[in-house]
Amino acid sequence: MSTSTKPPAGTRDFLPEAMEQRRQVIAVVERVYRSYGFLPLETPAMENLSTLLGKYGDEGDQLIFRLLHRGEKLTRTLSSQEPVDERRLADLGLRYDLTVPLARVVAQHGSRLPRIFRRFQVQPVWRADRPGRGRFREFFQCDADIVGSQSMGVEAELLGAVCEVFDELGFSELRVKLNHRQLLFALVSCAGVPEHLETDALVAMDKLDKIGPDGVAAELRDRGLHAAAIRELGPVLQRELGEDNEAILAALEARVGDSERGAQGIAELREVLRLTARGPAAGRLTVDPVLARGLSYYTGPIFEVEVSDLAGSLAGGGRYDELVGMFLGRKVPACGVALGLERILVVMGERGMFRPATSGPQVLVTCWSAELAPESVALAAELRRGSLRVELYPEPSKLGRQLKYAAGREIPLAAVVAPEELARGAVQLKDLRTGMRHECPRAEVGSRALALLEEA
Amino acid sequence: MSTSTKPPAGTRDFLPEAMEQRRQVIAVVERVYRSYGFLPLETPAMENLSTLLGKYGDEGDQLIFRLLHRGEKLTRTLSSQEPVDERRLADLGLRYDLTVPLARVVAQHGSRLPRIFRRFQVQPVWRADRPGRGRFREFFQCDADIVGSQSMGVEAELLGAVCEVFDELGFSELRVKLNHRQLLFALVSCAGVPEHLETDALVAMDKLDKIGPDGVAAELRDRGLHAAAIRELGPVLQRELGEDNEAILAALEARVGDSERGAQGIAELREVLRLTARGPAAGRLTVDPVLARGLSYYTGPIFEVEVSDLAGSLAGGGRYDELVGMFLGRKVPACGVALGLERILVVMGERGMFRPATSGPQVLVTCWSAELAPESVALAAELRRGSLRVELYPEPSKLGRQLKYAAGREIPLAAVVAPEELARGAVQLKDLRTGMRHECPRAEVGSRALALLEEA
Repeated sequence: MSTSTKPPAGTRDFLPEAMEQRRQVIAVVERVYRSYGFLPLETPAMENLSTLLGKYGDEGDQLIFRLLHRGEKLTRTLSSQEPVDERRLADLGLRYDLTVPLARVVAQHGSRLPRIFRRFQVQPVWRADRPGRGRFREFFQCDADIVGSQSMGVEAELLGAVCEVFDELGFSELRVKLNHRQLLFALVSCAGVPEHLETDALVAMDKLDKIGPDGVAAELRDRGLHAAAIRELGPVLQRELGEDNEAILAALEARVGDSERGAQGIAELREVLRLTARGPAAGRLTVDPVLARGLSYYTGPIFEVEVSDLAGSLAGGGRYDELVGMFLGRKVPACGVALGLERILVVMGERGMFRPATSGPQVLVTCWSAELAPESVALAAELRRGSLRVELYPEPSKLGRQLKYAAGREIPLAAVVAPEELARGAVQLKDLRTGMRHECPRAEVGSRALALLEEA
Repeated sequence: MSTSTKPPAGTRDFLPEAMEQRRQVIAVVERVYRSYGFLPLETPAMENLSTLLGKYGDEGDQLIFRLLHRGEKLTRTLSSQEPVDERRLADLGLRYDLTVPLARVVAQHGSRLPRIFRRFQVQPVWRADRPGRGRFREFFQCDADIVGSQSMGVEAELLGAVCEVFDELGFSELRVKLNHRQLLFALVSCAGVPEHLETDALVAMDKLDKIGPDGVAAELRDRGLHAAAIRELGPVLQRELGEDNEAILAALEARVGDSERGAQGIAELREVLRLTARGPAAGRLTVDPVLARGLSYYTGPIFEVEVSDLAGSLAGGGRYDELVGMFLGRKVPACGVALGLERILVVMGERGMFRPATSGPQVLVTCWSAELAPESVALAAELRRGSLRVELYPEPSKLGRQLKYAAGREIPLAAVVAPEELARGAVQLKDLRTGMRHECPRAEVGSRALALLEEA
């Protein structure tokens, strides 16, 4: 039986070229997050199913990869007389996102963490989604979260950081859509949507960018909303509330300012705008009263980052003050942002935004003969001590073949250790970019190589 | 039902302090590997079970975590009339090491890789072992491998790199035990062990350091070896073959030099010693004819790195010329080394070998009042542009409380944005290490902070 050598459906091998691009982006993300005082955290790939289930909705629960019991436990289940129940086959699952593990960590290790805890986390997550173009079963998330403060200063920090990340990556014309979960609920409630249909209404409204205002209105009708409520939501769906943030907020205030949730949402959005006015997010925030960000654990401000000429978002986040409490039993305020790393990589690739890789080998030390091989090993060791990245050709072979190998790998220089030059204490340094050869004293090969690399 | 917030048995949360130590080690490993021309590779956490099974022995196969089928596939299996067979519950498993995925990648992407492919890979692997002290179900491996050459120059490069890694990490008195799989087989064969017991004999001999020569002899007896064969192996088990490498190799040659496998093993070990004589591994290699490195896929030289005053090894590897062929159908020579990252971290921790972490926030910008908060946001943004790592206290609170928070986090400086100083265009910079306060003009806070940080 021949074995397929492809990676499993929905997963990828990252060859060196792809790795360099991934690392380029992750390095920028980390540098910016560090500049905001975020510290690294990593959690295990596997979590107890009891930790994961019930946090992502029914659909999410279905997409969690579960780890089959082994040994006795499995035998016991399979040999039982009763029909086999799925729940007796697994009690561990793979991480589905980085937020639930963070909440668990805060509940477990809270006393060892700073009172206000800023962490970033860059790790893969797994979802048993149907694989498709740009949809993977294993993909990386880059999250930054601040746990422990209810202040909108937290939102200001996160929005500043995420704007700086995109600036540093080279994206221009950044736009951040901003909304508030409580404001959303107030909007549909004040339009006359009964409480048990509030969530349904939000699900439909969340599709505005995909299906347009008429599509949303149709879906609202299908979900059982009265025509009056749908008419009431019309100007919101048409985005006809106002030209700028303050006009939109004033229009929203007129609609829902009397409700507790509405007033809270409007006040907090105003505070976010005030606090960000002199940081990197200044001028980039747009209040969008339809933004809903799915049906997850958000409780306060929510936001999504878009760049010009690109549908969909490259990052998103919001406040989730209830999630840690699901583990700890007491409320712990929290807010975070996740970058869509895989999408960012695709867009940067399409737009030619990557810097050329600069961490491959700089010098190939050739191998003339079995007899002279130790000379090559010694030279390679010396050059590495001089902080060059050096590959040793590991076997004797025709010089032309070795130089061709170096050129194919885009290694700029080759140090040819050959008997004649060696006899007079010299090594030939060949610049494979220009074809020029330089004979230099053995002790100067490193400094000469560095000079040639700098010239270019 | 309250949920446990511990990570699953055998796995760990890495809080920031642990992360900094892990990253410190990984950064050194990567820097050295890069200096040898190795390039990064990453593979998916999950592999097809057909890729994994049959590569690690029966015991290994049992330790592979399998991913339970979902949805229809699972329902079909569970609702079938026949008894449920384990093989119908899963066809994916979690990565068990980094070598088999590399072999699969070479078979799959070979045409896109350099003819001689050097890759390093730092990723977690999973094994369903019984968790215990220092034994985890999720742990990181750091592998470097060279694929595509049969030359012992490959071994010389790997041994040089691994010695440099330990030098750079600060380990002293490094010792590398060196042996050869073919030589081992020749030794037991020439001692009169029948072919079907060769592997059994190696398994027993591999335990020498744990159970001593008498223990090994007893086990060899139990496994059915004749007394004559055991007697013949006596000097090998007693390590009485010679004082230095050449003496040991000469003694081995006298025993097994006439067998093809023996002659090959001795010649290749001599070549490794010759090629490493002028690199970082020079003087550190000791031929140890009992070293066996388990029962895995090795076919040629094998080695293990030890440091003084520490039982067991911190790294190990060897040549495996058959593994890629299991996927590709044709032989591809390969050799690699794996670092025991988790063990290295424990030892470095016990011996106080970590540098103090230097990537936490350097300045806390305080928050005086809701009204002044935008001033704090603006100052934090400015300081970050001046390449400082800055945490903004996100909510108004008593100044003493904020300074105490900064001190607790070991943030060296606090920038106090207060109304009085602000009125005269100034900010107070407090050095929390000395207690000194410095009032400085708003525009100079960054340069002043950098100066204070450099002084220390």
